[in-house]
Amino acid sequence: MADAQEELRRDEAWMKLALAQARLAGEAGEVPVGVVIVHGERAIARAHNQRETLVDPTAHAEMIALTQAASSLETWRLDGATAYVTLEPCPMCAGAFVLARIGRVVFGANDPKGGACGTLYSLHDDPRLNHRFPAVGGVLAAECGEVLTRFFRARRGAKRMNENRANDV
Amino acid sequence: MADAQEELRRDEAWMKLALAQARLAGEAGEVPVGVVIVHGERAIARAHNQRETLVDPTAHAEMIALTQAASSLETWRLDGATAYVTLEPCPMCAGAFVLARIGRVVFGANDPKGGACGTLYSLHDDPRLNHRFPAVGGVLAAECGEVLTRFFRARRGAKRMNENRANDV
Repeated sequence: MADAQEELRRDEAWMKLALAQARLAGEAGEVPVGVVIVHGERAIARAHNQRETLVDPTAHAEMIALTQAASSLETWRLDGATAYVTLEPCPMCAGAFVLARIGRVVFGANDPKGGACGTLYSLHDDPRLNHRFPAVGGVLAAECGEVLTRFFRARRGAKRMNENRANDV
Repeated sequence: MADAQEELRRDEAWMKLALAQARLAGEAGEVPVGVVIVHGERAIARAHNQRETLVDPTAHAEMIALTQAASSLETWRLDGATAYVTLEPCPMCAGAFVLARIGRVVFGANDPKGGACGTLYSLHDDPRLNHRFPAVGGVLAAECGEVLTRFFRARRGAKRMNENRANDV
């Protein structure tokens, strides 16, 4: 019990760093999702969504972080690493975690529209694929979800303002 | 009927270029999978698997090609493009095609161990995700599969030879 509480405290501490990455994404006009990958007690990768900035459909936070982490460890096998993600990974990113043989994934908010670690798919736990990993959701879920909600609310507001301006012309 | 035959002829012509990419991968000691992405009548991306060379779990041929294609068109929306892949895409790559809003995917050999365009999953045709695309398998399937079979056979042979040498010492 004490161990479980200690693990949750540690998970929350790392998730706060992932949240800081998500906020950086939001400030850059990107859907705010952030990731930290931890090996031992060290963050070996920090990244945020950069799809618009890089004009790259594959530039989700998780993908960038996986490339960084493999570079840091000089191997694409990340079985000793844990990834902290503010939003449940999509099929692309969950599939990438399987290929990377990730040790564990901890995420914040569930993604009802595309989550592939328990919501729409359970790619992390498919015995037909060549790797399975534990995926734990709900860590700082409220904060992780709030960053996204605020971003989309602001974007809708800006869109409405532009439409009103267009009508005024 | 004539149209379908004409389309198949065109698909096979592009798949031959993807096969040439797969062979390049094999020569570099990579699992031989190749991709060409076509827009209009132009190849805007050609890539092969580079996971070992780049030490990157995300460096499947499809991912590299998607990044190239988005860069070429200066948008991550690739709805007018067709991807030719020698092997059925895995969950990561099929998920990436969904995110890229790819127009169509044509592949060669089925992948019983990880195929996500009809075999283990049908990520290309999930109404819950925000994009669907037609995925056509079996184009030059024999040649595409043969490149893989030969690669793994040679690798097993090399391994056995090394083991025998070790026993001789």
